[in-house]
Amino acid sequence: MTRFALTLEFDGTPFMGLQRQPHGPSVQEAVERAVHAVTGEEATLHSSGRTDTGVHALAMRSHVDIEKPFEPFRLMEALNALLRPDPIAVIACAIVPDDWHARFSCIGRAYEYRIVNRRAPLTLDKDHAWQVPQPLDADAMHRAAQALIGKHDFTTFRSAHCQAASPVKTLDRLAVRRAGEEVLIEAEARSFLHHQVRSMVGCLALVGMGRWREEQVAEALAARDRQALGLNAPPSGLYFVRAVYP
Amino acid sequence: MTRFALTLEFDGTPFMGLQRQPHGPSVQEAVERAVHAVTGEEATLHSSGRTDTGVHALAMRSHVDIEKPFEPFRLMEALNALLRPDPIAVIACAIVPDDWHARFSCIGRAYEYRIVNRRAPLTLDKDHAWQVPQPLDADAMHRAAQALIGKHDFTTFRSAHCQAASPVKTLDRLAVRRAGEEVLIEAEARSFLHHQVRSMVGCLALVGMGRWREEQVAEALAARDRQALGLNAPPSGLYFVRAVYP
Repeated sequence: MTRFALTLEFDGTPFMGLQRQPHGPSVQEAVERAVHAVTGEEATLHSSGRTDTGVHALAMRSHVDIEKPFEPFRLMEALNALLRPDPIAVIACAIVPDDWHARFSCIGRAYEYRIVNRRAPLTLDKDHAWQVPQPLDADAMHRAAQALIGKHDFTTFRSAHCQAASPVKTLDRLAVRRAGEEVLIEAEARSFLHHQVRSMVGCLALVGMGRWREEQVAEALAARDRQALGLNAPPSGLYFVRAVYP
Repeated sequence: MTRFALTLEFDGTPFMGLQRQPHGPSVQEAVERAVHAVTGEEATLHSSGRTDTGVHALAMRSHVDIEKPFEPFRLMEALNALLRPDPIAVIACAIVPDDWHARFSCIGRAYEYRIVNRRAPLTLDKDHAWQVPQPLDADAMHRAAQALIGKHDFTTFRSAHCQAASPVKTLDRLAVRRAGEEVLIEAEARSFLHHQVRSMVGCLALVGMGRWREEQVAEALAARDRQALGLNAPPSGLYFVRAVYP
């Protein structure tokens, strides 16, 4: 048995998320089908993060165990040929030790959220960003975001469907910057709750629009109540960008 | 009558080009239909450039003449609402003098061509770039490109369907640079022949792959023969980015 680490890039639009789902297409199902077509084996794909319907990845880290010997480059090329026309690509493939685990060995995760801040609808960026027509004050959003850094009970920013044992997480970084008509939000933590990034971005957008005072983000956090959430940002703007390993 | 200048952004993938076509959807048809829905008038859209099937625009400049009075911002908002779900957006709208013409007043046009230089297929950039798996030497491409600057007979780089009266054009700028896994080519001229940018990019890509010597680009130009063309790059990587007016 050989363990292969795969780095996946995908457009989440046509999928019901990364994880296999009983009622629709998933990234996991597509990759496992390609692995089966190449190897004849029923391998399970394990991944560093879970993503919802419509959420994208620039570099999701995953692994599969394969009995037959394969040269990593050849495996990557064969998987990419078989994944077409699904918008999933294996952008790196390497043999890793048997005790390396894409999910359990991962000590850090990073997401980026893209807002296109303009009145006109999206064309080339359709399904790949959140279009916010109201002018956003990115500096105010960045200041408000700093109240969320550190170890907190993030119940307010957690989906009702979240399966994590505890709502307490440590947020290492939450940075907001403007780049032309885009507002980009970067979030880093060891791990996140379900919907945490989208929920944080939604509240920061309310601050950016002037509908929330900056202090209301800290107040929402302190409330530890999902009812205190202002807005959950749509999945189309969210990208899994990095997984960190020791 | 009032002349409105429109700046259009569009994803060219689902269209048979900008210009109205008898046998399929075009950007012009979609915009004229939206103008008719808003105004009840049969206006003709005039544009600074023509684009082929699958070619995109970040800022095409166009104009329409409308009899009824409209406030430009309201016209833009109404057109954008009616253009959905077509991937076309009016990103600016202004009243211009009656003698301002999107095509005939235009004294400069700029295109950008995006190559994603990697082995893995495209996912998020599908239909929005040209994926070239062979490693490209962008510096060699840039050097070879300089032979095309200036006033030349560009017959080699001209489509058989080109309707221009003369194959002689003056190319002001052709710059190639690498940005991570992307190779970006910028082209500027007063005007271009049909397929000229894609044909120049195709030959430069051959240089980048090492299949052509740098001097072969100048030799192909000097041949003034479409048979000397090495490769026509696909439309998916081409963007109309700028029109210049006095």
